[in-house]
Amino acid sequence: MPRQSRTSGSTSRGTSTRKDILAAAVSLASVEGLESLSIGTLASELGMSKAGLFAHFGSKEALQVATVEAARLVFTEEVLVPARGRPPGLPQFQAYIDTYLSYVQRRVHPGGCFFTAMSIEFDDRRGPVRSQVRAFAIECRDLLEQTIREAQSLDQIHAWVDPAQVVFEATALVRGTIVSYQLLRDPILIQRARLGIEGLLERVRVAPPASELRPAMRRGAERA
Amino acid sequence: MPRQSRTSGSTSRGTSTRKDILAAAVSLASVEGLESLSIGTLASELGMSKAGLFAHFGSKEALQVATVEAARLVFTEEVLVPARGRPPGLPQFQAYIDTYLSYVQRRVHPGGCFFTAMSIEFDDRRGPVRSQVRAFAIECRDLLEQTIREAQSLDQIHAWVDPAQVVFEATALVRGTIVSYQLLRDPILIQRARLGIEGLLERVRVAPPASELRPAMRRGAERA
Repeated sequence: MPRQSRTSGSTSRGTSTRKDILAAAVSLASVEGLESLSIGTLASELGMSKAGLFAHFGSKEALQVATVEAARLVFTEEVLVPARGRPPGLPQFQAYIDTYLSYVQRRVHPGGCFFTAMSIEFDDRRGPVRSQVRAFAIECRDLLEQTIREAQSLDQIHAWVDPAQVVFEATALVRGTIVSYQLLRDPILIQRARLGIEGLLERVRVAPPASELRPAMRRGAERA
Repeated sequence: MPRQSRTSGSTSRGTSTRKDILAAAVSLASVEGLESLSIGTLASELGMSKAGLFAHFGSKEALQVATVEAARLVFTEEVLVPARGRPPGLPQFQAYIDTYLSYVQRRVHPGGCFFTAMSIEFDDRRGPVRSQVRAFAIECRDLLEQTIREAQSLDQIHAWVDPAQVVFEATALVRGTIVSYQLLRDPILIQRARLGIEGLLERVRVAPPASELRPAMRRGAERA
């Protein structure tokens, strides 16, 4: 958890807590990327002295690592926690997808999905940020696979289904949607992603009610 | 087309053509991003003088625009042209997906898919690069939708299918795969993407041979 410590008073807009600084850092990094996020740019963005910020983080890398950790806490609160409250198995899986798409559409961060942006920015760079982003991607994948396994044990999803493949397809669809949505900003893309997930789950779930069997790709389905 | 003009001789490693410079620019940008690509960084990368490079491009923005155009030509040559030669409709659509996944897996550019990286980097920035990237995304989408319409007219894909939804799902799946593949570097992800596309097409195509009807998500399918 971010400490609620205060800067040493040398700021021009009064003191900022570490938490406030990190919130600004996450927003800025979601738009500009994390490599261009230095103590200097962030200090000028916040109207603080570099010395004040340096007291909190000490190095650009420490600032980047703390920023990713702050973004992880936001993602957990906005995406993971609300879905965890849903009934286990398939409803929970669907809730994870819903809260993720909603996090993108509501623009929780001005630059869209923080982790998709960091994933692209750091996939070719070694160091702690790439390790954090990879570890969180794997953690989320494992969580979703566990949810599918629960859905299988509850007889909601067929036993012959490979949980890793379902999770891969659903996650790739959502991640790809994020890339396109950020560029084209057309809300229909989010709706198309929901239809795609629906079609994907149609193929794997046990005895869905007949009323839900309409093909998700039928023309005009996006206007339903 | 890039002109084959030569620099004015003030380079330290001899002269480089505009084409050579742009090939280096595309590689560098695929890894580091296009914003950090300046005439200065590129000159030092190529062992050229800034003056020599400036003679070709005149500004950072002109260099960025020329770099995206060069990447578009590579994508066209590596992904679009080979698929265009395939029989119309569904085989051509499948070929576009195959050549795109192969472009990613072969690492045509060291940083992976140039346009996915640019899409994430420029989605929040105004200017000519964002316009180029958007225009190319829309051009590719339209091309794929046309291919699906051809598949419908050839009775390969059901008439009730919305071409925009199929293309959206297939493209999102591939784009999302790229994001994960770049981060995790596991070749099984490319194989999972192919299975996902197969499953998607199973749902929309007319009378596939029974032998192709095995569910793509069956456990162990990735080892087939």
